[in-house]
Amino acid sequence: MKSFLYPKLIPPSFVWIRPEGNTQITKVHEWIQPLSTKSNPEQTRNTDVVVVGVPLSRSSISPSGASEFPDAFRRAWKGFTTYNIDEDVDLADMTALDVGDVPMHVTDIRRCHDNIVEASATIHRNFTTSIVAAIGGDHSITAMMVKGLHWAKPREKIGILQFDTHFDLRSLADNGPSNGTPMRNLIESGVIEGSNLYNIGLHGFYNTKDLKQYADEKGVNYFTLHQSRKRGIEETVSQCLKELAEKVDTIYLTVDMDVLDIVYAPGVPVGTPGGMTTAELLKAVLTAAKHPKVKALDIVCLDPLRDTQVHTTVKLGTHVFLTFLTGVMLRKVTGTEKG
Amino acid sequence: MKSFLYPKLIPPSFVWIRPEGNTQITKVHEWIQPLSTKSNPEQTRNTDVVVVGVPLSRSSISPSGASEFPDAFRRAWKGFTTYNIDEDVDLADMTALDVGDVPMHVTDIRRCHDNIVEASATIHRNFTTSIVAAIGGDHSITAMMVKGLHWAKPREKIGILQFDTHFDLRSLADNGPSNGTPMRNLIESGVIEGSNLYNIGLHGFYNTKDLKQYADEKGVNYFTLHQSRKRGIEETVSQCLKELAEKVDTIYLTVDMDVLDIVYAPGVPVGTPGGMTTAELLKAVLTAAKHPKVKALDIVCLDPLRDTQVHTTVKLGTHVFLTFLTGVMLRKVTGTEKG
Amino acid sequence: MKSFLYPKLIPPSFVWIRPEGNTQITKVHEWIQPLSTKSNPEQTRNTDVVVVGVPLSRSSISPSGASEFPDAFRRAWKGFTTYNIDEDVDLADMTALDVGDVPMHVTDIRRCHDNIVEASATIHRNFTTSIVAAIGGDHSITAMMVKGLHWAKPREKIGILQFDTHFDLRSLADNGPSNGTPMRNLIESGVIEGSNLYNIGLHGFYNTKDLKQYADEKGVNYFTLHQSRKRGIEETVSQCLKELAEKVDTIYLTVDMDVLDIVYAPGVPVGTPGGMTTAELLKAVLTAAKHPKVKALDIVCLDPLRDTQVHTTVKLGTHVFLTFLTGVMLRKVTGTEKG
Amino acid sequence: MKSFLYPKLIPPSFVWIRPEGNTQITKVHEWIQPLSTKSNPEQTRNTDVVVVGVPLSRSSISPSGASEFPDAFRRAWKGFTTYNIDEDVDLADMTALDVGDVPMHVTDIRRCHDNIVEASATIHRNFTTSIVAAIGGDHSITAMMVKGLHWAKPREKIGILQFDTHFDLRSLADNGPSNGTPMRNLIESGVIEGSNLYNIGLHGFYNTKDLKQYADEKGVNYFTLHQSRKRGIEETVSQCLKELAEKVDTIYLTVDMDVLDIVYAPGVPVGTPGGMTTAELLKAVLTAAKHPKVKALDIVCLDPLRDTQVHTTVKLGTHVFLTFLTGVMLRKVTGTEKG
Amino acid sequence: MKSFLYPKLIPPSFVWIRPEGNTQITKVHEWIQPLSTKSNPEQTRNTDVVVVGVPLSRSSISPSGASEFPDAFRRAWKGFTTYNIDEDVDLADMTALDVGDVPMHVTDIRRCHDNIVEASATIHRNFTTSIVAAIGGDHSITAMMVKGLHWAKPREKIGILQFDTHFDLRSLADNGPSNGTPMRNLIESGVIEGSNLYNIGLHGFYNTKDLKQYADEKGVNYFTLHQSRKRGIEETVSQCLKELAEKVDTIYLTVDMDVLDIVYAPGVPVGTPGGMTTAELLKAVLTAAKHPKVKALDIVCLDPLRDTQVHTTVKLGTHVFLTFLTGVMLRKVTGTEKG
Amino acid sequence: MKSFLYPKLIPPSFVWIRPEGNTQITKVHEWIQPLSTKSNPEQTRNTDVVVVGVPLSRSSISPSGASEFPDAFRRAWKGFTTYNIDEDVDLADMTALDVGDVPMHVTDIRRCHDNIVEASATIHRNFTTSIVAAIGGDHSITAMMVKGLHWAKPREKIGILQFDTHFDLRSLADNGPSNGTPMRNLIESGVIEGSNLYNIGLHGFYNTKDLKQYADEKGVNYFTLHQSRKRGIEETVSQCLKELAEKVDTIYLTVDMDVLDIVYAPGVPVGTPGGMTTAELLKAVLTAAKHPKVKALDIVCLDPLRDTQVHTTVKLGTHVFLTFLTGVMLRKVTGTEKG
Repeated sequence: MKSFLYPKLIPPSFVWIRPEGNTQITKVHEWIQPLSTKSNPEQTRNTDVVVVGVPLSRSSISPSGASEFPDAFRRAWKGFTTYNIDEDVDLADMTALDVGDVPMHVTDIRRCHDNIVEASATIHRNFTTSIVAAIGGDHSITAMMVKGLHWAKPREKIGILQFDTHFDLRSLADNGPSNGTPMRNLIESGVIEGSNLYNIGLHGFYNTKDLKQYADEKGVNYFTLHQSRKRGIEETVSQCLKELAEKVDTIYLTVDMDVLDIVYAPGVPVGTPGGMTTAELLKAVLTAAKHPKVKALDIVCLDPLRDTQVHTTVKLGTHVFLTFLTGVMLRKVTGTEKG
Repeated sequence: MKSFLYPKLIPPSFVWIRPEGNTQITKVHEWIQPLSTKSNPEQTRNTDVVVVGVPLSRSSISPSGASEFPDAFRRAWKGFTTYNIDEDVDLADMTALDVGDVPMHVTDIRRCHDNIVEASATIHRNFTTSIVAAIGGDHSITAMMVKGLHWAKPREKIGILQFDTHFDLRSLADNGPSNGTPMRNLIESGVIEGSNLYNIGLHGFYNTKDLKQYADEKGVNYFTLHQSRKRGIEETVSQCLKELAEKVDTIYLTVDMDVLDIVYAPGVPVGTPGGMTTAELLKAVLTAAKHPKVKALDIVCLDPLRDTQVHTTVKLGTHVFLTFLTGVMLRKVTGTEKG
Repeated sequence: MKSFLYPKLIPPSFVWIRPEGNTQITKVHEWIQPLSTKSNPEQTRNTDVVVVGVPLSRSSISPSGASEFPDAFRRAWKGFTTYNIDEDVDLADMTALDVGDVPMHVTDIRRCHDNIVEASATIHRNFTTSIVAAIGGDHSITAMMVKGLHWAKPREKIGILQFDTHFDLRSLADNGPSNGTPMRNLIESGVIEGSNLYNIGLHGFYNTKDLKQYADEKGVNYFTLHQSRKRGIEETVSQCLKELAEKVDTIYLTVDMDVLDIVYAPGVPVGTPGGMTTAELLKAVLTAAKHPKVKALDIVCLDPLRDTQVHTTVKLGTHVFLTFLTGVMLRKVTGTEKG
Repeated sequence: MKSFLYPKLIPPSFVWIRPEGNTQITKVHEWIQPLSTKSNPEQTRNTDVVVVGVPLSRSSISPSGASEFPDAFRRAWKGFTTYNIDEDVDLADMTALDVGDVPMHVTDIRRCHDNIVEASATIHRNFTTSIVAAIGGDHSITAMMVKGLHWAKPREKIGILQFDTHFDLRSLADNGPSNGTPMRNLIESGVIEGSNLYNIGLHGFYNTKDLKQYADEKGVNYFTLHQSRKRGIEETVSQCLKELAEKVDTIYLTVDMDVLDIVYAPGVPVGTPGGMTTAELLKAVLTAAKHPKVKALDIVCLDPLRDTQVHTTVKLGTHVFLTFLTGVMLRKVTGTEKG
Repeated sequence: MKSFLYPKLIPPSFVWIRPEGNTQITKVHEWIQPLSTKSNPEQTRNTDVVVVGVPLSRSSISPSGASEFPDAFRRAWKGFTTYNIDEDVDLADMTALDVGDVPMHVTDIRRCHDNIVEASATIHRNFTTSIVAAIGGDHSITAMMVKGLHWAKPREKIGILQFDTHFDLRSLADNGPSNGTPMRNLIESGVIEGSNLYNIGLHGFYNTKDLKQYADEKGVNYFTLHQSRKRGIEETVSQCLKELAEKVDTIYLTVDMDVLDIVYAPGVPVGTPGGMTTAELLKAVLTAAKHPKVKALDIVCLDPLRDTQVHTTVKLGTHVFLTFLTGVMLRKVTGTEKG
Repeated sequence: MKSFLYPKLIPPSFVWIRPEGNTQITKVHEWIQPLSTKSNPEQTRNTDVVVVGVPLSRSSISPSGASEFPDAFRRAWKGFTTYNIDEDVDLADMTALDVGDVPMHVTDIRRCHDNIVEASATIHRNFTTSIVAAIGGDHSITAMMVKGLHWAKPREKIGILQFDTHFDLRSLADNGPSNGTPMRNLIESGVIEGSNLYNIGLHGFYNTKDLKQYADEKGVNYFTLHQSRKRGIEETVSQCLKELAEKVDTIYLTVDMDVLDIVYAPGVPVGTPGGMTTAELLKAVLTAAKHPKVKALDIVCLDPLRDTQVHTTVKLGTHVFLTFLTGVMLRKVTGTEKG
């Protein structure tokens, strides 16, 4: 085990215990299994979903405690069943593995980023057919996760579907690979083409004009929240996926929790009014997840330290993850997934 | 007075005072009158609405301060007028009586439940034509309120319309009549038939699969929030009422405040993302309240201790109650109620 | 400078500093300029937007810290770009001037009100073609701002479009010109006619019946939130503007932040359930702002002291202001404004 | 009744109800009785303690919700027994009367102040031997309560013991009789002499130098918190009382809750670091209350709207009141009071 | 394993994971070991400290989430080192075992109490020389833990040292074995003698007079907080221990977190002003823990759901526990413990 | 100006405006002047106090928003007068200059640290006789500020007086120059000798044993909070200063706000129970500030984002700063400072 994954990953800080005799899986914390030292490559081959924590947020422009989300996320599992009543599917019919966290360094952000790239590559090499879900962390991790995917599968053309209030196309020249830059990072490093990036959720007064101009130059596709609502969120997502599917082999879905209105996601570093509602985001994520080319997900910029006392945002982030998996399940159920 | 109601009920802990000379009723706290020792059975006959506090929440699976809601509810009255501008009706045209709280025991939950059954029966016997509103408390009280109604009017067939994120169909064998069990309790005790239970609002990952299977076995009718939204919340409620009205004599409406998205109701013991909005719940309650067969209401699982500092959830719970009464008023206004 | 404006206005308590060399305007705090002692009447003639703080809230019926909003509003600017991605317009193409705050007295509310009237008149006289935005303060300031406008331009007939949960038509005989009275104040003082007042957003149990009767007597036009939703918020606003435009020369838009549901605006003195959503209010404000006869705006009853720790309501109030300016920009862009 | 007190006072907004049969007084809410319409001057003669609410805080320099304290105070009674275990005395051995609130006007602060003066005079005339406790409100009420006392008993020389972070000696010329001025108000109006004012608790950076100079000119006595701690808080209080008792007939104790460190009293309009601890204030109040010449008390500047969710400051304000009464009881017990 | 402990205990819901290679113990969560299924009676014999969670709080008079403390306590371990710099001792020189939680029933409080008695007896029988620390839960658990100790060691005379704001001597006749009754429960059931109960920390207006009378009748020893402060907290504790040690074989220390001032422990169900400071409680606990006859501890009435967002009270409760263990260590270091 | 300071410093983001005619300085925000572009080296020579913001906290081990403190600190000035009533000194008799903030980079922490060193050196070279106060930021900045001082004045031997819960002596090998390492950094780089470091305030379970061993090896002097309390905080500080003064030329005082109990400083990244009280810290700081060899100060690890809604910790941090300046003033007043 140690030989193929642990050198680059540290186990989750805790594991849930199931009382003896309690054999039926009904809750998420009973279902997702930590990668144990007894695992072997053989077993991993059949894993449907791989979860990895990416606890980095010191690369965030605004102060962020998003590094605390992977652990908060794991603690939240206990509050969720594996059964989704809306879609009548039970996630427990899939296998899910928690491979732990990417190791981070306190003062060397570059080393953190390198670790993420390497971890991502390792995971994608070992779990070639699994859905990989990265739990951030700030948005800078997306560039690294996608680069890792690109390393692991250099021949696959990658497209990105991004739910975000921002373009994340800031210049790296100013402040390095911060959470304002991941999409530009990927475009400039040639990992993705601008025209294979689709952004849904831009709104209000939270992007400077020059970023829009850069987006236009690079052929980035974007649909403001207003446009998306007019057409229908689901229809917009479907249309993006359809276009992407014609151009790329693999679609990476990145959910920046700040796409939500501050009322729905108080626990993000810089929340804004006028964003998506919970219902809209969940619908968008479910729609995306059903598409067979969507192979990877990340959820970023969720800061549990700023959340309400009733954990509004942590619960929602976890719900987003499970809704994504529901979509993945539905592919199987409806046979849309062929591989 | 003492002879017919007080032995089983304790007065509210406080009463609102109206300054002398202030004779016009414009606020709810000036309108709802406490049952005084000078009341007599005669007077009670003409009461339109009876309110009773049911301050029990130690029967809740999760820690809950819902026992504090009856008092918080009474304190909130001062912030509401009796006049509903949306429907142009004045609740003050009805009479409303606050009969106080059901007495509770600290360590004997069974005795608490017995008291509720008995209080419910007493109220329904004494106020045969009144609308009875029980202010919980956790959801375990619903089973007891309905049993009391059944005791009082054994010949009336009872149906239930439930707004809830959960089935509340857990087995009583595991942990007794907790707030996870009221509907099963009523079915298994023969007070209602499974097919006369209609649940609206189920969503997400908050019910285990076996509960759905139990619901199906018993013929329970349920409409997930997604299904209800697709058809329209009002239409869904109307359809449920129409079906129920053909099968039963009396419809009991139970509103579990956790049916709301955690953003709209932060003050519930275990809030969830993805639930109803305030607008949806109010619309659903108004629609239900207009139906002449709806004779009783409860509002449960609202924990003022977890609420925001601006009392978001307590205010909403009170608004739900007043919206319900608005619907009742509209029956009168439009003459739909014949009795 | 001092000679024409400062005697009646005090400068903002602080000004934003732009680091040298940073010449491009991308954020709101870099764009809105304080009225400096070097300004002269000449320069002011071309100002598109004038902002004035009106930090009075001791005239509020309920305790209110709305007097803190002008400063909180200015501090919030840093979090907003001038570029609106939804409408693809850059506010920096207009000029905006912050003329500071109306001076207030601690214990003489009448003097405060007189100061507001005088300041409003002074501003409207000096900036005859500018849009004037008053940042409250409680709702009592509206009567004073409109009176000042009337002083400055006595021949212009004024109409009011009001987004509010309340009528604000209480009798001044009871408690003087509090925040419950501004509309009645204007009607009774003959500054506006009842039929030129349009109110959108009334809902629930927050107005007494006699206020509705007064409104009806005076011919006040109002559309409850339910009615507005049924017809469409934008359509309702457009219809009101159309009617108003036929009757008046100048339309004053007053946004009482309590028109929002308490979930969307926790930081108002007395929030209520069942109000507008953020999306609805922003749409309504944008629609109104596009109309060429809308010449003045106020935003009132936003209490930063009761806001959440992530400043939900202060951010939203600022967003409302910028959305209004976006509408003003769109008049220019689309050439609807002739002047 | 109406004839001698009600014209100037409005009853408390609610009264506590004691369930029938529950005759033993053990809690404060069972003990303090509202002035009923059946009371007569005869009965009032033997009242030991009179409580009056003074819900005015629009005269506060900083926004303040201290007007909400009288009601919050009454609601808090339920959490306190009448028995003080520290001193082994039972307050229920005294009689206490709640005469309700002084009526206030929303926009005419002068009228509010006049009402307070008149109410104070009425109370002191009717309850000549009772201890009178005014529950504020902001600190401006102290000037009015003391003036009323002076009206009622013009021959009694009055001294003041003040626990405060501030001098409250600001000039009335600037902003009228705000909460920054009460002591100057009383000195300048000749109601008290500067040398009969004793201030304990000044500290830190919260008074301008000119106020100290004014205090020195007028012979005001003050002991900073540091000085008081060095000598011992109790010793300082005792020394002040001893000096005062030699010079005046009646001592009025005014407790500005902002004398406490912000950690101990988060719910004051402008809390400061470095103030008194709870233990210090309680000790100081108890010491003062034991002195037979202390005949009146007020507790001001406690804003329940800014308090913590567990009501830290409201509970403490109530505890201060009960501690004061404990001292009064001890006079009786130890026979120091002769009358 | 299963055969001697598990039937009565359920494992903690989660266990901390130590990354491979990380062998040095520096943090508490690396030190305290869960009882694994591989443990055997042999090994347990040498355990210095046994920790057991007692997650019951539905027996609390006021609504309480103290049932959540055992898990919150375990999660807090990660924030503490095993090394105490004040006393220069390393707790890691002792062995500590977490045996999990006592199983609870949702609606049968009696069964919960029976389970606690039985679990306590089992633990004391199996870990005859270990210090046993029970993590509550509300104060009703103390009666049960002590009864279990009595069952296990019927010949040992037990005394109790109680740090509490309350007597906890309410009659069981009223509401059964609630958290207001544990000491009376033990006295009336003959498990301890009244004169072997020592209470430190009573203060203010939080006990009715009849409880003091009962305490006096039964010879209960108590020292109010004022008395204790006058004499010195440490001296008071030492004196109590000295007296107790002459009369009993085993001393049980019970720490009700509500003994603290509400400022220091906001997260208790009903906090009060005027209680102990953190420094006082820690000193008292350390003093008690050094005494060789103190064999068991409980920490009760800490409600994480009411705590601040920075976990003030949960951290303090954990610190109290570790301070207690420091005292136990010091016995060893200084050789005071002979066994 | 630009030529000697600005290249390395950016101006504060805002400046306070004084209304015209308001010439008397009474508040801190009127007193501390921003370094304007018109300043010249001449003028700076007579500056008594130089303030510099050091907004870096991405080098913190735990997520920290301490980078927000410099701005929060400047905003807090308005709430403080320049006059200290305890010591009867007016800070306005000194001159104070705010030179702005050290520029930071988002993803290159090393560059941030280099900037701090350089800025510190520049300031110390230009303001050779001024007191320099650095407003952090996290504790990693201390190593950089002291290195800068060392660069500027290489012949002066530097000693450090540290108020801290932690040693901050972690190995740099593990995670680079984080906020856990500054003292070790300075010792290992030869800037200070271990024996010239004095730490006051260590307590509880927040340092691992190996750090104590390292401290002992290097001859670091430390006094736990318990030891300091026993001897008296002031006496302990005085003794440390006396020893330091015999060994070094310049004493640098570093105040880690986490030295305070979590109750007094909720707004630090990782607060702990059992720390200093506000009164203790203020006394310690005042004592230190009076010493003529104390030439520099920093205040670190204060995270405004985690603070209470009433800004408890930000106010306290500002109070600490002003208390320090009070001590500096007292040197002048009492003539202890010769230079």
